[in-house]
Amino acid sequence: MSGLKIGVIGATGMVGRQYLQILEASPLEVGQLRLYASARSVGSRMTYAGESLAVEELTVEACRGLDIAFFTVSTELACQYAPQVAEHGTLVIDDSSAFRMDPDVPLVVPEVNPDAARSHKGIIAGPNCSTAQMVVVLQPLQQAAGLKRVVVDTYQAASGAGKAAMDELIDHSRRFLAGERPAPENHPQSLAFNIFPHIDSFRDDGYTKEEWKMLVETRKIMDLPDLRLSATCVRVPVAVGHSEALHIEFERPMSAREAREVLERAPGIVVVDDPLNREYPQPIEAAGLDPVYVGRIRDDVSNPGGIALWVVADNVRKGAALNAVQIAELLYPSAVPAQTEGRATAAMTAR
Amino acid sequence: MSGLKIGVIGATGMVGRQYLQILEASPLEVGQLRLYASARSVGSRMTYAGESLAVEELTVEACRGLDIAFFTVSTELACQYAPQVAEHGTLVIDDSSAFRMDPDVPLVVPEVNPDAARSHKGIIAGPNCSTAQMVVVLQPLQQAAGLKRVVVDTYQAASGAGKAAMDELIDHSRRFLAGERPAPENHPQSLAFNIFPHIDSFRDDGYTKEEWKMLVETRKIMDLPDLRLSATCVRVPVAVGHSEALHIEFERPMSAREAREVLERAPGIVVVDDPLNREYPQPIEAAGLDPVYVGRIRDDVSNPGGIALWVVADNVRKGAALNAVQIAELLYPSAVPAQTEGRATAAMTAR
Repeated sequence: MSGLKIGVIGATGMVGRQYLQILEASPLEVGQLRLYASARSVGSRMTYAGESLAVEELTVEACRGLDIAFFTVSTELACQYAPQVAEHGTLVIDDSSAFRMDPDVPLVVPEVNPDAARSHKGIIAGPNCSTAQMVVVLQPLQQAAGLKRVVVDTYQAASGAGKAAMDELIDHSRRFLAGERPAPENHPQSLAFNIFPHIDSFRDDGYTKEEWKMLVETRKIMDLPDLRLSATCVRVPVAVGHSEALHIEFERPMSAREAREVLERAPGIVVVDDPLNREYPQPIEAAGLDPVYVGRIRDDVSNPGGIALWVVADNVRKGAALNAVQIAELLYPSAVPAQTEGRATAAMTAR
Repeated sequence: MSGLKIGVIGATGMVGRQYLQILEASPLEVGQLRLYASARSVGSRMTYAGESLAVEELTVEACRGLDIAFFTVSTELACQYAPQVAEHGTLVIDDSSAFRMDPDVPLVVPEVNPDAARSHKGIIAGPNCSTAQMVVVLQPLQQAAGLKRVVVDTYQAASGAGKAAMDELIDHSRRFLAGERPAPENHPQSLAFNIFPHIDSFRDDGYTKEEWKMLVETRKIMDLPDLRLSATCVRVPVAVGHSEALHIEFERPMSAREAREVLERAPGIVVVDDPLNREYPQPIEAAGLDPVYVGRIRDDVSNPGGIALWVVADNVRKGAALNAVQIAELLYPSAVPAQTEGRATAAMTAR
């Protein structure tokens, strides 16, 4: 049998299902696909490329022989299983926060630091979703003018907290419209017609861990250990699609015009910036698509030589499953049939 | 008849109705209240303090004899009527953008520049709603440490665009949940489970007029003609309550601890900042209330000596009707019965 032996660990979850969709559309040559979940999902079946596949129980033994295991499970489960699976020679690509800051694990966004992926020791991590889409935009600007400081405020979709949280937004919205005020179960507050600046838990310094991740993960991915960045992470009543307002200061002056040219040439980005025709990125339009969308690019009126802009991407795709599959495409180019243009390349040129 | 003769111009609109509620709760001694609207609303009746009042057609003649006219109409109508009404000796307090940047018209937020109100020549303007709640927070910080630069990203409620826009959010959300994708009529895009960085129209420099107002109105109200400020204004699917993420740079270093102490003492503000107990300002909790709520106060990790924080207020109240009534309370203290604590004072001490 030719092609890669691939496993999706956590296949039955929201992001797991996205892996199946994205692998199906990927130029990666998938020889065998195996699906893993917890014991209670064993026996259920999922469709991949027209074929019905049984879900297996996750054990280290059951993962033996895989070339690649895409982990999309909790941090706890990733910590428990990923090292053992990697030890048997399988490349683990993990989208949890378990290994991101481990100095032995590369933290990779293919548009930004593809070379880091090649130095892996069995495990590669993908970043937090709000970080992933931001660094795709920051990297070409860093190369052009050197980043000095970034201020970012986010508008994050319910799906960033998982399927139950996304379903709760829909359910609570319906009940809110019927006059009810249901109590939250999967969010810290009800998200129906409300927003709150509370994603992940709070640190002693008043930042949330989500805000902190945007700082430390960005520093690691971009290899800028001294980058200055401050974030406010906010949940908004949107199902899919994270948005971010960025205000960027540079070492060398950057104009909005230059930034637009740089971003238009950059991998993975589509510039949507024609506000007079009401064209700017919106989550409802980015959902289900691969690129990172950038618009509202303008000279920062408060900081000559700086710029402000607006970034939107599908947090379930670029923020998780797509990024992980792009890492695999990067490391297994021989499994990307030569006659077709690979997704990694394609996504990078933002077809 | 004792007490003030007060008119509400545009009484039948969403903000007009708020004026009635706020006047009813105000310590201002209202001797006579008259309600004005366009010809098509004439004959309708509204209830004030248990009394049914007829709505009159707006004409300059019909406003004769008023002590105060609260204008809450379009910029066009304000331009047409306010100067003539003021010429007959009525104090016009206008919440449109018609006169805000007119050098002969004070732009007033009572917590910030009460003295400016006293130099009026017949017309006083109130600021844009997103500016009003921000300057209440910036003013005590300016006094404590001197503002150098402000970055602000907003999360603005549908009601900021008027009642039809708020109703459209509810209607579109209902239809979205039923599988429809209705086209927007009162917003530039559908707001159901979506957000967009487009409030008011676009300027040539890429900023929206809403974003520009936050800069120039803040400079005027705070009398800081060189203040550096950059805003991204974003509409979110919330009915009432604007939220703002602020990142503030100072002339002299300011710590989060000091900022919290300053803000706890400041007029009009309630600090809600106990994130470990899930307490931070949220629009759904601020709606219908007077104070400007501040939380998430923290040292800006990207800028030593700077701070980041989160501000929420009812945009229809502090952003419009409440601010205007507070201006009247400021100028007519004799009409605020001495034995009760006036709302202006009360709101300023954030009871």
